[in-house]
Amino acid sequence: MEYSFSDRVNSLKPSAIREIFKYAADPEVVSLSAGNPAPDAFPAKEIAEISADLLNRHPVDALQYGLTEGYTPLRDYLKKYMKDKYGIGSENDQLIITSGAQQVMDLAAKSLCNEGDVVICEAPSFIGSLNSFRSYNAKLVGVPVESDGINTEILEEKLKTEKNVRFIYVIPNFQNPSGVTMSLEKRKKVYALAKKYGVMILEDNPYGELRYFGENVPAIKSLDTDGIVMYAGSFSKVISPGMRVGWCVAPTPVIQKMVVCKQGQDVHTNMWSQIVIHEYVTKYDFEAHLNYLRELYRKKAQFMMDLLDEHLAPYITYDKIDGGLFIMCKLPDNINMLDFCKEAVKRKVCVVPGNAFLTDENEECHTFRVNFSTPTDQQLEKGVKILGQLIKELCQ
Amino acid sequence: MEYSFSDRVNSLKPSAIREIFKYAADPEVVSLSAGNPAPDAFPAKEIAEISADLLNRHPVDALQYGLTEGYTPLRDYLKKYMKDKYGIGSENDQLIITSGAQQVMDLAAKSLCNEGDVVICEAPSFIGSLNSFRSYNAKLVGVPVESDGINTEILEEKLKTEKNVRFIYVIPNFQNPSGVTMSLEKRKKVYALAKKYGVMILEDNPYGELRYFGENVPAIKSLDTDGIVMYAGSFSKVISPGMRVGWCVAPTPVIQKMVVCKQGQDVHTNMWSQIVIHEYVTKYDFEAHLNYLRELYRKKAQFMMDLLDEHLAPYITYDKIDGGLFIMCKLPDNINMLDFCKEAVKRKVCVVPGNAFLTDENEECHTFRVNFSTPTDQQLEKGVKILGQLIKELCQ
Repeated sequence: MEYSFSDRVNSLKPSAIREIFKYAADPEVVSLSAGNPAPDAFPAKEIAEISADLLNRHPVDALQYGLTEGYTPLRDYLKKYMKDKYGIGSENDQLIITSGAQQVMDLAAKSLCNEGDVVICEAPSFIGSLNSFRSYNAKLVGVPVESDGINTEILEEKLKTEKNVRFIYVIPNFQNPSGVTMSLEKRKKVYALAKKYGVMILEDNPYGELRYFGENVPAIKSLDTDGIVMYAGSFSKVISPGMRVGWCVAPTPVIQKMVVCKQGQDVHTNMWSQIVIHEYVTKYDFEAHLNYLRELYRKKAQFMMDLLDEHLAPYITYDKIDGGLFIMCKLPDNINMLDFCKEAVKRKVCVVPGNAFLTDENEECHTFRVNFSTPTDQQLEKGVKILGQLIKELCQ
Repeated sequence: MEYSFSDRVNSLKPSAIREIFKYAADPEVVSLSAGNPAPDAFPAKEIAEISADLLNRHPVDALQYGLTEGYTPLRDYLKKYMKDKYGIGSENDQLIITSGAQQVMDLAAKSLCNEGDVVICEAPSFIGSLNSFRSYNAKLVGVPVESDGINTEILEEKLKTEKNVRFIYVIPNFQNPSGVTMSLEKRKKVYALAKKYGVMILEDNPYGELRYFGENVPAIKSLDTDGIVMYAGSFSKVISPGMRVGWCVAPTPVIQKMVVCKQGQDVHTNMWSQIVIHEYVTKYDFEAHLNYLRELYRKKAQFMMDLLDEHLAPYITYDKIDGGLFIMCKLPDNINMLDFCKEAVKRKVCVVPGNAFLTDENEECHTFRVNFSTPTDQQLEKGVKILGQLIKELCQ
């Protein structure tokens, strides 16, 4: 049998990052390529307690079918939490629980984009989201990210010239992969431009709670008086990614379409995860856990930046980060980035080639992404030293 | 803001069944409209034991990111189980774990159908699947179901006349909603027709393990020597729907596309569910649990059919079932089906109007679906008596 596939999936390739995981599985390899929480970042004891109580006392709640919109107490909690803590959500918004924030990207593209419609993305941006959009045959248009966020002049140019733009996709906090945080000024500008050109914004904020330095910057969604922002949140980086629980706050008509699409996709999100997370955030000290995570990762982030300064300067540069899990490194222009990454793998260090995060993978690219949350301090040191040795050999 | 949506979702409506659940939430209403397992059908004690052990000893396994293809030990178990027990799967097939079998329907349509391509469905068929296909703008073409399964003459006619048919969607065992089981002869015929016309088959088998009467009929996938059948399985009806774990066995190139699509949809299925189910099926007596379920539901199915015979005959007829969770009832031609269902709701009995399961909801329809797994025997009796009183009033 000759198999033929739909146009929308014909061009899709497996995520380069997940492909690189295969090398990273070699225990001798130092993987700076993942984006996993640290193994000691999970509230494992509390989850075990809550789960035992749930499964002993109310097992049917966890095992029976649930509502597509999500577990009502968790939805109610999140509406209040987002509103009280971040000023997110109005009477014109609704909230859906999703199977990880990844599903928000899928549902947004599915609900809003006809094939060929445009999604404007930061360049670079999160590859998982780009692939979601691609999987509906959306046309991706990249706008460069600077050290204070997306270039708003080029953004306006694209809004003027591109036809059928449906939404602007941004990760304003500690962007994956650049590590950059969008300034308040630029957030306001992006919002104003979206309003002016009649397009929506998809604001993805998986790392927002993981700020290690500086002050919180208001979410674009908190400025949304016109009903044009869809906001995606996630428990993956602050409780557990394996539980697959995220959410979206967006205008009610958009959420209604997402609900119908989710019905056909997975009926509803795993009930056990939703109930356990609700119990955890309401009956345990979630804020203390967030502080613990910030402390854990602040140390690792600082340790990593110190290592980069010590071993990679002046050849390799990077933007300092205020939070999140990733740092983007920039090679000198005369070094071939893919050759560098391949040679690093041979020397048993995995990093992610920067072109994986571009809307057009074939663009010239001199960056690579490193992660510091998953490896031990010892591994970080070993890995960065090897990268330092390599870049010195190439540049001297 | 005026919201505009993609063509593919513009026509989508929330599932009629799930809308009817809202009435069913009234505790005074006898709901014969659900499809939930009975509350005492879950291996709750065993799941609590396994979960406690997992979360105490290896919490990170359940809480960290996993592979998109699924938890490897569960995939390996299912490959062997399907092969040994049902002769399903060859060296040219692969297996993906999905977030419920519903996700298989989504991934199959996404991978195979361009907008406007045709999916041939049984008429009636499972509304959740029809909505999945619709959500990719597939054109649904219905072929009537008879008491031994799909009408294969009309199927061939449609295969001859319809352009761009991508696959034939069938539920051969205890079909939802008709309750009908496809004969072996027809399974062979459907396979031969798919081969002749170069289209694939999507065989959905969520109820296959729930046979109460008669002998197992081989799956179409077990006849698949040409690599043209995608098979969807599910733990929802035999362990728990809230855990959202299903799977698909299909030719490797198809599974590879499904994996890429799933990456962009939810990254991977909930880890806790996958590990707990794997432990349950390998370390506990799954076969004994299946026998317990068959006994539990056999009694309820027989009780329900006896009630229908006693209270609804001769006005309302139905095809006897050999398994599954649903029975399709047929009203006399002179009774308006929707009026009947609405009047039943007023009298506090919920059933599902048969047109909800048609590829064209506006077709004339005289059927409604009842479920017997969720209500208590007392509720079944009360509900059927009310339906009986109603039909007698209308016919006498």
